[in-house]
Amino acid sequence: MSWKDNLRKIEPYVPGEQSKEKDIVKLNANENPYPPSPKAIQALKDFNAESLRLYPPADATPLKKAIADYYGVGVNNVFLGNGSDDVLALAFQAFFNGDKPIAYPDITYSFYPVWCRLFGIPYKTYPLDENFRINPEDYREENGGVVLPNPNAPTSIGEDTEFIQKILDYNRDSVVIIDEAYADFGVQSAALFVDSDSYQNLLVTGTFSKSRSLAGLRIGFAIGSKALISVLEAVKNSYNSYTVDSLSIAMGIASFEDRDYFTATVDKIIATRERMTARLRELGFTVLDSSANFIFATHNDYSMKELFEYLKTEKVFIRYFNLPRIDNYIRVTVGTDEEVDIFLKETEAYIRR
Amino acid sequence: MSWKDNLRKIEPYVPGEQSKEKDIVKLNANENPYPPSPKAIQALKDFNAESLRLYPPADATPLKKAIADYYGVGVNNVFLGNGSDDVLALAFQAFFNGDKPIAYPDITYSFYPVWCRLFGIPYKTYPLDENFRINPEDYREENGGVVLPNPNAPTSIGEDTEFIQKILDYNRDSVVIIDEAYADFGVQSAALFVDSDSYQNLLVTGTFSKSRSLAGLRIGFAIGSKALISVLEAVKNSYNSYTVDSLSIAMGIASFEDRDYFTATVDKIIATRERMTARLRELGFTVLDSSANFIFATHNDYSMKELFEYLKTEKVFIRYFNLPRIDNYIRVTVGTDEEVDIFLKETEAYIRR
Repeated sequence: MSWKDNLRKIEPYVPGEQSKEKDIVKLNANENPYPPSPKAIQALKDFNAESLRLYPPADATPLKKAIADYYGVGVNNVFLGNGSDDVLALAFQAFFNGDKPIAYPDITYSFYPVWCRLFGIPYKTYPLDENFRINPEDYREENGGVVLPNPNAPTSIGEDTEFIQKILDYNRDSVVIIDEAYADFGVQSAALFVDSDSYQNLLVTGTFSKSRSLAGLRIGFAIGSKALISVLEAVKNSYNSYTVDSLSIAMGIASFEDRDYFTATVDKIIATRERMTARLRELGFTVLDSSANFIFATHNDYSMKELFEYLKTEKVFIRYFNLPRIDNYIRVTVGTDEEVDIFLKETEAYIRR
Repeated sequence: MSWKDNLRKIEPYVPGEQSKEKDIVKLNANENPYPPSPKAIQALKDFNAESLRLYPPADATPLKKAIADYYGVGVNNVFLGNGSDDVLALAFQAFFNGDKPIAYPDITYSFYPVWCRLFGIPYKTYPLDENFRINPEDYREENGGVVLPNPNAPTSIGEDTEFIQKILDYNRDSVVIIDEAYADFGVQSAALFVDSDSYQNLLVTGTFSKSRSLAGLRIGFAIGSKALISVLEAVKNSYNSYTVDSLSIAMGIASFEDRDYFTATVDKIIATRERMTARLRELGFTVLDSSANFIFATHNDYSMKELFEYLKTEKVFIRYFNLPRIDNYIRVTVGTDEEVDIFLKETEAYIRR
């Protein structure tokens, strides 16, 4: 018997590559190419740094209120965490305590199986169809919970509210989590169902890391019925009471209040995405219809793994997944027009070699 | 069968009261009365807020290096989290996976049993002796792990390195966590044992919230053998890869580099603590010898609960625990000299009524 016997044996999740090189075109982490709202930056400048000696308010109510106002829900319908990974990890612990497997797609956010293994949650994956779409009928099967990202990642495909409502109607007896990390770039938020008495089992998660340009701050949130939010709060307060720091609260509020900047940057990213998609299709790529701030593409005549490696030598960083079904696809973040032009130019150079 | 059946049933931990009133003397949360290092504040001013659009580096190596240099260990001996509660919660999950109960005192940090319940870890508490000291012989009993705060809270009592070494020598087969949230105010860090091959099972945890005046930022850390740190990293990377935000990294580095300011503020707090202790003793209080930034005191002739409530009406907030053995004690944070003078004046007014 040694202390080593009680150590957790776990295969670590390997975060995406973060190059320390300068002067790269960084289209590999789905970061926003535009800075945070000037009002958020001003909130940081105006922040009284001496007050950091004090704990943040454990409930962070003013930030909850800014989010609640935006989504048209109450403060008690909002939960905050240290990035949406924190929110999702707490939600898995809070809601998936049954014996039946939880359900999610075979191709989706790679952290779901990692949390299931960490918390000992049984799970079952349902294959996306041949067009990489989620088949809602799969989620009629009895399950211990459902997790679906909308838009899905890395496929970029978004679904409409009829689809979400179908999932909810099929799953009256399970908690349904809709992970909306990328929703602002192309789908309507399922938060509209949170007000309804019929869907007390719905949790919608969101993040400041993508559409709000605040990945460096680590803020995520969830919107759900009071019944779900109160259980999430109880689990969070059994883990770490003060997860959202004072600077994040101040900048987060300003970010949500600046709707004009938010709309303008999201619209710019969507316009660049459409231009990028059209040009790649001209070059013979198959590009899935994206509702996100990234595109997912393949080409019948070329190895996407080689393209990924070629682009890296040209200092253009994109993402390649060596995984079943998608091992000839690339995922490319929508950057600024300038960044995307460099990506397109180098991609064209590769296929014209 | 309803979705409600799979919700986690858990008694939430209730964080300490955080009054929203202004103009109070706030001596109830063991916050530092002095602002963060001017160099940390400068680091915040110099921070390029536009870069917050990018994720922080998942490994936060520059901050690990600043901490490693201070404690004389390697970067691979340092782990970072979102406050020391996050670090401890991850450590409980990483190291306490056996069937034997983990061991800690009956009077100690109130989060330990909360984590045990959350993660299903068996535990056994050992009563402090009649002087509120930890009896090291208790920790010879076979166990699944040991957690001891040094100084202990809320007793404020610190133990020397001989005591820690004894605990380590008695527990070759368990992971031993020494929780040093308050260590900078009066005990030598057990980090000095981390270098030793004999104590690969030692984890020391620390925080920026007390001696570093950065409670608002949420940074905690751990120091341990590479064997322990690598398991902690694996569990953390299975939970949330990006826990420490970019602003915390920048301010945290500056804070650790400014040793003069750190020493000066810690020394001021210790001097105030000794003056406060002496005066309370003159007033007939029993005050435990504190190695922390708070004192723990009682008086044979007065109800400490009533004193606590009286002080609140005078806008002086301290802490009272309605718990077995300590229900006639108060815990008072060491504030500025001015704050402590108000506390002493009002306390004297109470007992002279």
